[in-house]
Amino acid sequence: MKIIHYTEVEAKSYPSDLVKGAKGRVVIGQADGAKNFCMRVFELSAGGYSAKHSHAFEHEVFVHSGKGMVYSQGNWTPVSSGSVIFIPPNEEHQLKNVGEEPFVFLCVIPSGVPEL
Amino acid sequence: MKIIHYTEVEAKSYPSDLVKGAKGRVVIGQADGAKNFCMRVFELSAGGYSAKHSHAFEHEVFVHSGKGMVYSQGNWTPVSSGSVIFIPPNEEHQLKNVGEEPFVFLCVIPSGVPEL
Repeated sequence: MKIIHYTEVEAKSYPSDLVKGAKGRVVIGQADGAKNFCMRVFELSAGGYSAKHSHAFEHEVFVHSGKGMVYSQGNWTPVSSGSVIFIPPNEEHQLKNVGEEPFVFLCVIPSGVPEL
Repeated sequence: MKIIHYTEVEAKSYPSDLVKGAKGRVVIGQADGAKNFCMRVFELSAGGYSAKHSHAFEHEVFVHSGKGMVYSQGNWTPVSSGSVIFIPPNEEHQLKNVGEEPFVFLCVIPSGVPEL
């Protein structure tokens, strides 16, 4: 059994014009023997956002803390601690921080795609 | 895209001597078209605990809030907000609330087993 705090995992940054203020961590993945799906934790700093994109695999998202918005089909919906988002395959999506504190969310993906 | 707060989902209770003060919710599952894995949110009230058991599928757990302990191989380890637990297949495990507030955690499982 692996028991850690998510902040113990080294964070990856995203030096890109499409992403701002984002850090990502694989907290449970292939390296742990997790064969079916992979848990990542993302932090967006104040003013930060993820890329607006789509792909063939789904996301299962849970908002841990902070205040954000999620983009779906032309609309932005507010989310906060305890919000759950299911992003089906091939649906365009983006998340952004609209608060002052870090916006922290889990994003679980199936195995077989890049973990981060 | 499905966007909800986890508390909007009806909770299931566990009337059993093996479980105390537990409520479970499937927040993303087969009914949403999630084909690969299923996200559940569990709440253990003060003094509550899950069953001590093992099974052939893994758990990927993230602690949202509260203070708990997790059992592994004869030992109990404290966990709290932001803790991550990977429980491999067939490893005996149990979680309990050791705080005054509800102990809330996500538990993601592969598809093909009962969702709750």
